[in-house]
Amino acid sequence: MRALVLDDGVQFDGDREEPVCRETEVLVRVSVAGICETDLQLMKGYMGFQGILGHEFVGVAESGPLRGRRVVGEINCSCWSCEMCERGFPTHCLRRSVLGILGHDGAFADWIAVPQRNLHEVPDSLPDDVAVFTEPVAAAFQIPAQIPISRHDRIVVLGDGRLGNLCAQVLAGLSDHVLVVGKHAEKLALLRSLGIDTALLGEVERDRRADIVVDVTGSETGLPAALELVRPRGTIVQKTTVAGTQTLAWAPFVIDEISLVGSRCGPFDQALAALESRRIDVSGMVSDRFDLSRGVEALEYARTRPVLKVLLDVKSHR
Amino acid sequence: MRALVLDDGVQFDGDREEPVCRETEVLVRVSVAGICETDLQLMKGYMGFQGILGHEFVGVAESGPLRGRRVVGEINCSCWSCEMCERGFPTHCLRRSVLGILGHDGAFADWIAVPQRNLHEVPDSLPDDVAVFTEPVAAAFQIPAQIPISRHDRIVVLGDGRLGNLCAQVLAGLSDHVLVVGKHAEKLALLRSLGIDTALLGEVERDRRADIVVDVTGSETGLPAALELVRPRGTIVQKTTVAGTQTLAWAPFVIDEISLVGSRCGPFDQALAALESRRIDVSGMVSDRFDLSRGVEALEYARTRPVLKVLLDVKSHR
Repeated sequence: MRALVLDDGVQFDGDREEPVCRETEVLVRVSVAGICETDLQLMKGYMGFQGILGHEFVGVAESGPLRGRRVVGEINCSCWSCEMCERGFPTHCLRRSVLGILGHDGAFADWIAVPQRNLHEVPDSLPDDVAVFTEPVAAAFQIPAQIPISRHDRIVVLGDGRLGNLCAQVLAGLSDHVLVVGKHAEKLALLRSLGIDTALLGEVERDRRADIVVDVTGSETGLPAALELVRPRGTIVQKTTVAGTQTLAWAPFVIDEISLVGSRCGPFDQALAALESRRIDVSGMVSDRFDLSRGVEALEYARTRPVLKVLLDVKSHR
Repeated sequence: MRALVLDDGVQFDGDREEPVCRETEVLVRVSVAGICETDLQLMKGYMGFQGILGHEFVGVAESGPLRGRRVVGEINCSCWSCEMCERGFPTHCLRRSVLGILGHDGAFADWIAVPQRNLHEVPDSLPDDVAVFTEPVAAAFQIPAQIPISRHDRIVVLGDGRLGNLCAQVLAGLSDHVLVVGKHAEKLALLRSLGIDTALLGEVERDRRADIVVDVTGSETGLPAALELVRPRGTIVQKTTVAGTQTLAWAPFVIDEISLVGSRCGPFDQALAALESRRIDVSGMVSDRFDLSRGVEALEYARTRPVLKVLLDVKSHR
């Protein structure tokens, strides 16, 4: 099969062996996959991952109870028996692999093996190009799953990229005071067209009045900027994962009793429902599509241009 | 009056001018004061403070409604009219000064001016040498004021020093699984004599099973160690304030969805009640006493020796 493989750099392999399913897994024929900031970080060495990249996808189940149905898949492959699984945190399974991120091949390929339990059927009304956003929309819904949000909370979403857009849309459904702070006029304009307030990073007042700041910058500049925006006793939600270390003055966390909440994967069912009801609108977010065979080019494009979502079309030229 | 003044280094001044009270302040004649890790950090340049050091004290009010009574004083001098004060967070007053820490002379002196609102009368049954612990005991009680603690929570208190001891005692009243991890056999022995489990830092398993880790190391080694002890989705309570910056790998906060909660000053009323009822036992914590005139020596002693609390006796030689 065809696959985009990260090893010493990313290569397109036109003759990769098809995945072998474990007992609990089913084979999914990938239709469309999305490129995520994490893929770009993995290419820089984050997590030390080697194998087929890709964890945002929609496809068709080839076996199991959903055989023949369109599916999306949660990315954490859990053991369901360790302490964290038993405590109800399967995304934190101590023995987990993660599709396209940790010890498990991903979705930038014709086929991917996915645990049966991870699959969610896609409603007929959701086109592939919308359903492929389920994983990042779920990650955005993880924020209200972790911290209470009220209509009065002043929320700054720091970062106007792919995940920033989705977090802003989710949070704008919960609070009347969401402001997206970013660097890209075009991306901010898209958010304004959805009725969400925006500001350019250079123009926003560092007045430390936000109750909640969500760092989705994907950059190590995010956290210091968040500390200049969040109020004392406020909360910083950290979505940005950066390879390597970061140097920071720590005392403000204590002096101002700031809470920092790391936030990762979220609920697929809420994401699918929000996409189906169009409460989350991803129609303006696809910047470009590349055939899987041009995946190396697509990754380079996503890495170097201020684009939103770049999709990989897997099924067209199969 | 006599005072320990931080300027370019700490000096004893035998002829310092007495403090002038603002309208809302009363004069307190200091009886006993305690040396805190923050004092030692201030001497290293933390907060850029200049003036009379000291924020842990017990004394006698010289004016106001508590005139002639023994008092302890909260350290944050709040405006009671800014946004944070009006939201109910006077310790985060945007215009605050802080006794002996920020823009207000402290308690290592014969007299200190303290806002009347900050004073709490000391119960007759509490000797000065116990009442002087009210401020750090209140800081320990701030932990359960910020995060819920259950009897089943596995809590590691990282640091066996002054504040570590008090945090451990407070938390041991709320959870059955408190472990203090430290470096000093003698300090750990004192905790064991209070019925609290202890372990030496080098011997503790970095198995990431703690629900809550409290960093009271007073050192930049605390946070990395806390990350090796806390479980995924667990909470790190940060009490340590360190001058300058710290370099850290950030991704674990996101991957493991760790919460970090900065924690500072706490409720004096709870602290006084706990000291009065002897739920918090500070009897073994006074390592040494120095007369105020030997304060420079006392600070040096506290800085260089693995001591617990060093007290300054202010009233004896007045």
